[in-house]
Amino acid sequence: MKKSYAVIGLGRFGGSICKELSREGKEVLALDSDEDKVNEFKEIASDAVIADATDEAALKELGFRNIDHVIVAIGDNIHASILTTLILKELGIKRLTVKAQNDYHEKVLNKIGADEIVHPERDMGKRIAHSIISSNVLDYLELSDEYSVVEIKAGEKMAERTLQDLDIRAKYGCNVVAIKRGKEINVSPMATEEIEFNDILIVIGADKDISRFEKDLVIDDE
Amino acid sequence: MKKSYAVIGLGRFGGSICKELSREGKEVLALDSDEDKVNEFKEIASDAVIADATDEAALKELGFRNIDHVIVAIGDNIHASILTTLILKELGIKRLTVKAQNDYHEKVLNKIGADEIVHPERDMGKRIAHSIISSNVLDYLELSDEYSVVEIKAGEKMAERTLQDLDIRAKYGCNVVAIKRGKEINVSPMATEEIEFNDILIVIGADKDISRFEKDLVIDDE
Ligand SMILES: Nc1ncnc2c1ncn2[C@@H]1O[C@H](COP(=O)(O)OP(=O)(O)OP(=O)(O)O)[C@@H](O)[C@H]1O
Ligand SMILES: Nc1ncnc2c1ncn2[C@@H]1O[C@H](COP(=O)(O)OP(=O)(O)OP(=O)(O)O)[C@@H](O)[C@H]1O
Ligand SMILES: [Ca+2]
Ligand SMILES: [Ca+2]
Ligand SMILES: [Ca+2]
Ligand SMILES: [Ca+2]
Repeated sequence: MKKSYAVIGLGRFGGSICKELSREGKEVLALDSDEDKVNEFKEIASDAVIADATDEAALKELGFRNIDHVIVAIGDNIHASILTTLILKELGIKRLTVKAQNDYHEKVLNKIGADEIVHPERDMGKRIAHSIISSNVLDYLELSDEYSVVEIKAGEKMAERTLQDLDIRAKYGCNVVAIKRGKEINVSPMATEEIEFNDILIVIGADKDISRFEKDLVIDDE
Repeated sequence: MKKSYAVIGLGRFGGSICKELSREGKEVLALDSDEDKVNEFKEIASDAVIADATDEAALKELGFRNIDHVIVAIGDNIHASILTTLILKELGIKRLTVKAQNDYHEKVLNKIGADEIVHPERDMGKRIAHSIISSNVLDYLELSDEYSVVEIKAGEKMAERTLQDLDIRAKYGCNVVAIKRGKEINVSPMATEEIEFNDILIVIGADKDISRFEKDLVIDDE
């Protein structure tokens, strides 16, 4: 059977989840107590309803029991978020993802059995801070506290040199796993591949090794 | 000279940026009109001040002219966010990153010269939606519309088989660029490497190829 989802709270965060799940062809019930928000999602989600999520009878009547995964994206009203989570847990929802506003909120959500607790503003702040610090690093995936995959803009120092010639693996212990040139991505770059000025390198390795590599080869002297 | 930063608005988003920049040893001026918020950052940021960011004279007096990069993380009060951005632009700040609440807000910020405009709730919603859809995909880095690097939990079907034996590259056109086992990360896995049940594979390739790979080898039959 096809998995079904519900998103409760259609603010920027919940709304974005609802849109993305729908775009991927998933069956999504969108719910908010605000009529305008619900109207916005009438054409996007499989179904969009106005209801107060803290109203147990309403959730039962809407058939929440049969929904596989519910995302609670109520923010400012922490009390409503907790109460909604409690009710959904009692209805036996298999999987509950809940947005937390602060550490206290997270603690309570944990105790009452939320499966995943997310802090969108905090996590995005962290991501943005990293992209601010190293402006040559366009984006990254943290593999652990010590390892990452990063997208690095090739600077002047690398232009027209080959991977072999730069000897990145031996010198810095990190690997160039792909090269992005305009819209083209080469996921098996050869050692003889010549780097161009505007290329973006996808590099995997220890953070300290990537930093050394960046310092030597990426950041242009000022 | 060391680069200096200021964060205006110490909510969850701005607060997280301020903490992360400070943790990385950067010089950060934290500013909010709310005294409680400012007190929270007294020990964290290089300096924390109470001020209304829409007060041009106050920003001048605080020496904003000499700050290299300012992050405006005022959310709900769109008017204050726009006015603050205008003032900072006029003070000649080199780099301005501003949080937008909606498309209208973004349009105005663009027109008045914000260098980077960010939508934390929206972007995080998109990320969370992806991790919800494929629960074997723990995290990912989007390289383009068609290519990604993903962290995939090895399922039963891969356990105790080697990369060579699975022939992922030839069969699916994607590459396993690293294997995470507990806290250890091997960024140069050999073809003879045997995968264990709880391993996490870092895979790079076209989204459609990664999906095929997932369907065949990762998702356990239900
Ligand atoms: N009890 C409730 N039942 C249903 N929906 C609710 C309930 N309480 C709040 N909501 C809805 O949750 C949504 C998110 O609420 P929040 O206060 O976090 O708004 P927001 O700050 O605009 O959200 P975001 O940070 O995601 O942009 C709103 O659309 C609101 O109408
Ligand atoms: N004119 C202003 N000058 C200085 N600070 C301001 C001004 N207006 C708002 N702020 C501050 O900006 C911060 C963020 O405001 P916002 O309304 O987005 O709060 P929030 O929803 O808690 O933030 P977040 O979504 O990041 O958690 C608040 O701490 C607020 O006091
Ligand atoms: Ca909010
Ligand atoms: Ca790290
Ligand atoms: Ca907010
Ligand atoms: Ca994609």
